[in-house]
Amino acid sequence: MAKKASSSSRATDGPRLVWTRKDLLGLDDLGPEEIVHILDTAESFKEVSTRSIKKVPLLRGKVVALLFFEASTRTRMSFELAASRLSADTVQFTSSGSSVAKGETTLDTVRNIEAMGVDIFVIRHHQSGACHMLSRNVKASIVNAGDGQHEHPTQALLDIFTIRQRLKRVEGLKVAIVGDIAHSRVARSNILGLKKLGAEVVVVGPPTLVPATIEKMGCTISHNLDDVLGHVDVINMLRIQFERLGGNLFPSIREYSRLYGMNAQRLEQCKPNVLIMHPGPINRGVEITSEVADGPNSCILQQVTNGLAIRMAVLYLVSQV
Amino acid sequence: MAKKASSSSRATDGPRLVWTRKDLLGLDDLGPEEIVHILDTAESFKEVSTRSIKKVPLLRGKVVALLFFEASTRTRMSFELAASRLSADTVQFTSSGSSVAKGETTLDTVRNIEAMGVDIFVIRHHQSGACHMLSRNVKASIVNAGDGQHEHPTQALLDIFTIRQRLKRVEGLKVAIVGDIAHSRVARSNILGLKKLGAEVVVVGPPTLVPATIEKMGCTISHNLDDVLGHVDVINMLRIQFERLGGNLFPSIREYSRLYGMNAQRLEQCKPNVLIMHPGPINRGVEITSEVADGPNSCILQQVTNGLAIRMAVLYLVSQV
Amino acid sequence: MAKKASSSSRATDGPRLVWTRKDLLGLDDLGPEEIVHILDTAESFKEVSTRSIKKVPLLRGKVVALLFFEASTRTRMSFELAASRLSADTVQFTSSGSSVAKGETTLDTVRNIEAMGVDIFVIRHHQSGACHMLSRNVKASIVNAGDGQHEHPTQALLDIFTIRQRLKRVEGLKVAIVGDIAHSRVARSNILGLKKLGAEVVVVGPPTLVPATIEKMGCTISHNLDDVLGHVDVINMLRIQFERLGGNLFPSIREYSRLYGMNAQRLEQCKPNVLIMHPGPINRGVEITSEVADGPNSCILQQVTNGLAIRMAVLYLVSQV
Repeated sequence: MAKKASSSSRATDGPRLVWTRKDLLGLDDLGPEEIVHILDTAESFKEVSTRSIKKVPLLRGKVVALLFFEASTRTRMSFELAASRLSADTVQFTSSGSSVAKGETTLDTVRNIEAMGVDIFVIRHHQSGACHMLSRNVKASIVNAGDGQHEHPTQALLDIFTIRQRLKRVEGLKVAIVGDIAHSRVARSNILGLKKLGAEVVVVGPPTLVPATIEKMGCTISHNLDDVLGHVDVINMLRIQFERLGGNLFPSIREYSRLYGMNAQRLEQCKPNVLIMHPGPINRGVEITSEVADGPNSCILQQVTNGLAIRMAVLYLVSQV
Repeated sequence: MAKKASSSSRATDGPRLVWTRKDLLGLDDLGPEEIVHILDTAESFKEVSTRSIKKVPLLRGKVVALLFFEASTRTRMSFELAASRLSADTVQFTSSGSSVAKGETTLDTVRNIEAMGVDIFVIRHHQSGACHMLSRNVKASIVNAGDGQHEHPTQALLDIFTIRQRLKRVEGLKVAIVGDIAHSRVARSNILGLKKLGAEVVVVGPPTLVPATIEKMGCTISHNLDDVLGHVDVINMLRIQFERLGGNLFPSIREYSRLYGMNAQRLEQCKPNVLIMHPGPINRGVEITSEVADGPNSCILQQVTNGLAIRMAVLYLVSQV
Repeated sequence: MAKKASSSSRATDGPRLVWTRKDLLGLDDLGPEEIVHILDTAESFKEVSTRSIKKVPLLRGKVVALLFFEASTRTRMSFELAASRLSADTVQFTSSGSSVAKGETTLDTVRNIEAMGVDIFVIRHHQSGACHMLSRNVKASIVNAGDGQHEHPTQALLDIFTIRQRLKRVEGLKVAIVGDIAHSRVARSNILGLKKLGAEVVVVGPPTLVPATIEKMGCTISHNLDDVLGHVDVINMLRIQFERLGGNLFPSIREYSRLYGMNAQRLEQCKPNVLIMHPGPINRGVEITSEVADGPNSCILQQVTNGLAIRMAVLYLVSQV
């Protein structure tokens, strides 16, 4: 399989790739043609969400189980709505007050729910690699909705989809990812996907949040956001996850915001069409000001909308295997 | 628009009012004809719930998001069942373990969920005015399921619907609302709606729970329930919300019950057909005795049943705009 | 009604029993023909779960409310999936953050939800007898999903269904139930159902967890698992519910496991086709080793799969009355 596929392949009339994976575990596993195939499939699902009756019967009678071992609002809702837009039945599980508290292993929990006739599991788990482990041990499809500090493939896919939609290509673009790179599965999946589609990636943040080892993924490192601004086509501002950062990894919120926050002054130093992204939920005034978040260069809500099309595409593709 | 519309207008064959509001925020905003129009629409939906297959496809492919920033059992379930009886898809959000904990503003949360293709938001929020604020900032419909101490319009609509059903009219009736008027959005919405339809309202309770300013809403105040009993057609007993009342707003539960509780002795002093209402959940033996709550003058469970028809009507009407 | 019905009656072409019960409260109430009728009905529903579109419209437009006053993962999910496989609408209620916290009685909660048009309640409750009490006071169907230390009838039905499926009969079999018999509603319902279908039951466990009064149910007692192994056709290993056992009812987990845990050595002393069952979730290495739980004599996941067919059958049968 070629290392890089043209992201414009969606325009061709030739035979499409045949999807062969029962799971979506991470972008690390996928070839560039497979990534492009998901994006192209999502393109055709975008239209469904604009209909007056926003439903297609493609997954009717199938069961999608949403297993969130970590709390989530938007990702869970996005998958839930994607499943019901495909007419699947959904069943939910969150870890509080459940058999997890009763000492059952994750694998036993999933195998048991599988035995009830579940076709696809959408799983968020605090352990990196949980989805790969499950994938090897159950017949149902596993879709990774975020595993530890490892991958969050549908977030990266919707980010790349949005870039392609707004800038008409991915190959050759320069993308900055700013913030807590060390702990971010969103950053990891984005770097993997963007590199496979031929983009350049620079990661930006304080040394405590940007490990030197990240260079092995093929991206460059900067500790100075202002140095980077004028050279990039896309700036993806990660969320500062105050609730996860235990120690004093940076001096203060104010200091972080001054050094790495996106604001109107910094936007002026960017290319005029620079695309400002954020996976949400945003901390207004911390990593991004309201002026920028709500301005014309921002595509934050478009990312959310595209997330639904991406998740419909992923659920559909894995269900066909 | 006339200040008071006949509640019997539902019997006419003439053209109905054309509903023009994308939201239902409170009864304060509505003209009497609009209130009557909701009641009449609910009348036609009541029949659906008596069918063997309790479903109509009016909202098929539409998405109703139930956002409860405050806990609720019956209101959430009632809206959820109303939505599914109209064949809508529902998606739920409660504030615990969600992006609220991550510091996101309510508006950002709602805008994000809207970007997933939600058509109608049913929102309960601890802040008075939250629904009005959201209404101005999102395109989707907002239905207020209770905001702070402000309004709970569907509760008042189902109360008025039940009064009209049992007593065949609203205009000219005398309605007592008894209890914690100061903190009750149910009382506020009821006063607003009843006054607009031409009823008289007397609010009854201890001075600590009945602010003098309430008279500005056009109702009279009494601190003595026994003075009122013989003169009213309807007595709506509010729930004493022990879990909300911080200080010592009344001497004791026993004292409250003795002065303001509805019981068999008091019922004897009422008109024979007096209608006893309660928004639930009831504290048996506190604001109402079991004898009265389960007796022939009570319409408490009928209120719950009518709530479904009212909520179907509201979801249907706002979805057509 | 005969005390024992042949479990092979499903093979006959004659007229089936006419189901007349609006509720499923426990196996204590049922005659053997009724138990067999549920098993036979489940047999015909098993096929639905193997279809590509796993849905039948038998309960379309009906509403099933899942009321779990105690936490549960698998039982709630199993009922939820059973209901949606029958095309019913479901609505859920869990006790946390609900009107239970507001002091409402269970009966008022259920009556209120019934007034919203619910047809069937699936109820798990911490109080023994809660379902019987509700059954007498509401018109909707009540299905017991576990009440206190009383009964868990659908668990016993799926266990007996699985025994019949694997060993082709129930009558005349010898079944051991091992573990905390004293606190187990699963044990109680199993004993009741197995005895009615003509099986022999021996309960096994330490004296602290096996009350002498259990003999009144018609089973024998053993405190030595090894004495029993060679004589039984089925061994049902109960879960040790560490989270419920308050005091020091047995010396230690290690000691319990040594005396009453199922392992490869013990399996060798059993009949070759002995069936090893467990209601889940399992504590691997405590009451059962992984070697046995995942081995050929185990039917643990099959039990889960059969649970769906049993619950579809129960929901269907009670809805027809």
